[in-house]
Amino acid sequence: MHVISKKEIEQLLPNIDSMPLIEKGFADYSEGKCNIPPVGELIMEKGEIHIKYGCVKGGDYYVVKIASGFYGNINMGLPNSNGMMILFSQHTGEVAAILHDECLLTDVRTAVAGAISAKYLAPKNITAIGIVGTGVQARMQAEYLAPVTDCKNIIVWGRNPEKLLEYKKDMTDKGYIVTATMDMNELCSSANLIVTTTPSEDVLITADMVKPGTHITAMGSDMPDKQEIDAEILRMADIVVSDSIEQSQLRGEIHQALKRNAITNDDVIELGTVISKGVGRSNEDQITVADLTGVAVQDLKIAEAIFHGATKS
Amino acid sequence: MHVISKKEIEQLLPNIDSMPLIEKGFADYSEGKCNIPPVGELIMEKGEIHIKYGCVKGGDYYVVKIASGFYGNINMGLPNSNGMMILFSQHTGEVAAILHDECLLTDVRTAVAGAISAKYLAPKNITAIGIVGTGVQARMQAEYLAPVTDCKNIIVWGRNPEKLLEYKKDMTDKGYIVTATMDMNELCSSANLIVTTTPSEDVLITADMVKPGTHITAMGSDMPDKQEIDAEILRMADIVVSDSIEQSQLRGEIHQALKRNAITNDDVIELGTVISKGVGRSNEDQITVADLTGVAVQDLKIAEAIFHGATKS
Repeated sequence: MHVISKKEIEQLLPNIDSMPLIEKGFADYSEGKCNIPPVGELIMEKGEIHIKYGCVKGGDYYVVKIASGFYGNINMGLPNSNGMMILFSQHTGEVAAILHDECLLTDVRTAVAGAISAKYLAPKNITAIGIVGTGVQARMQAEYLAPVTDCKNIIVWGRNPEKLLEYKKDMTDKGYIVTATMDMNELCSSANLIVTTTPSEDVLITADMVKPGTHITAMGSDMPDKQEIDAEILRMADIVVSDSIEQSQLRGEIHQALKRNAITNDDVIELGTVISKGVGRSNEDQITVADLTGVAVQDLKIAEAIFHGATKS
Repeated sequence: MHVISKKEIEQLLPNIDSMPLIEKGFADYSEGKCNIPPVGELIMEKGEIHIKYGCVKGGDYYVVKIASGFYGNINMGLPNSNGMMILFSQHTGEVAAILHDECLLTDVRTAVAGAISAKYLAPKNITAIGIVGTGVQARMQAEYLAPVTDCKNIIVWGRNPEKLLEYKKDMTDKGYIVTATMDMNELCSSANLIVTTTPSEDVLITADMVKPGTHITAMGSDMPDKQEIDAEILRMADIVVSDSIEQSQLRGEIHQALKRNAITNDDVIELGTVISKGVGRSNEDQITVADLTGVAVQDLKIAEAIFHGATKS
């Protein structure tokens, strides 16, 4: 049994081109080639875990990912997020590898899904990247857009001025031109590719803020009660994309919009279908939304890539 | 992160008295002190996995168990069953230990649950232990009865004469007096403590075979389609016990009997309630049935015991 540490994973990641692998995963998923049961959840007093698991039918491996969020950890100097992915043989059930990534691979595959969404849905000419939030994904979503856009202008929104300045400093050091704002209207008027990355349960972007030609990737909301963008934005959007229509029934922005009758399931197209049929944005004035809740096939694809990298070296 | 191998677990097991720990676990579960989500399942072409997970609320750890069955493995010289238990801190979500037990601890905690069932439900004077099946649990269920009964007479039923003789030889070597039979009537007339351990989808024991004063622990049926004993046995039983009434709605003998209207949920009492209230067998003529589908609290308790044993030594 191969145990791969976070450190080893960090060393392997730069040599892995996970975007095409995850695109293929989404396409397989939407073509019904995957077996992905509903997400398992255990909610405890101090934290919660999500179990995502599944396989591509007839493939070599299946994955089980256990990801946790313990929101008081920060007070103990520990990261809130943790977890591991376990890769098993689909031929024998034997463990191939335990990837003790401590949530790193979840962060990567989530950022890659953001990049894939932008590839198919963002306007060609990106004026600025609007980042809502100042955490790990606020950084990674911007950085993982590199294969999709040359735009280095970021406008970042946050509630906490200190975290905003820290974000600005960090991303400036990485070569971005960063404007920090606490005014969401300012973000929406200057950015036409917006990524929302917060665990907010209150709407942060309302419909009146969103101008024609905007793409929004909403990846913060992954639970029934979380919501970052107004359901009216989904109603007025030309294209509403979900990474998993099944999961969107229960969680995320689409769940919120369905609940409010702002859209129906007929208005939603799956990311894998967008990829395989190439049915993304068709003109520069469309408003598009991609709602990402995270699908086990992403975990499978990145875990396989790391495992192959680790056993090759 | 502590990885504990099957070999280490085998060395630790003799020093662990898991029966009182698992009794306490069942009692906690039936008193509503646990948080145990529904069992996760992934069914693939060559095998299937079950994910059992949960915690005692406010305890130190939670467990996630991934157990697999790949029924063609035997043709490759590999065991059909495999898996691991992972113990995490309920305070921080950090991994405490990976117990790569390859299904051993599932076998142990299942056998212990059989012993607990017999402790509260079997008649005082056991004439013979009837074992239905000749596999791993057919052996372990008998051996783990040692703290509950001095009876060393086993009558074992199987379909395959070679496996029956192998069982007889193995258990005779361990000090049992073993009768092998292919006639279930013979088993039911001589044994008053019967344990069924097969994955059968057809009824093996019918109501007319069961004499007064018999206790049956049915542990083979853990899936919706599996059934070893006639639903009529549950109808005529004085006491019907489930390790988890919630799980019994979907799987096992009680599920089958509910489906056939042979019993209602009001006829079923949970094993943890039997333990905490001491409401087991009250006379030697009662017919009693314990239907075990396997509960995550058993996995938690045995995983904690192994972890404590491993870190103490």
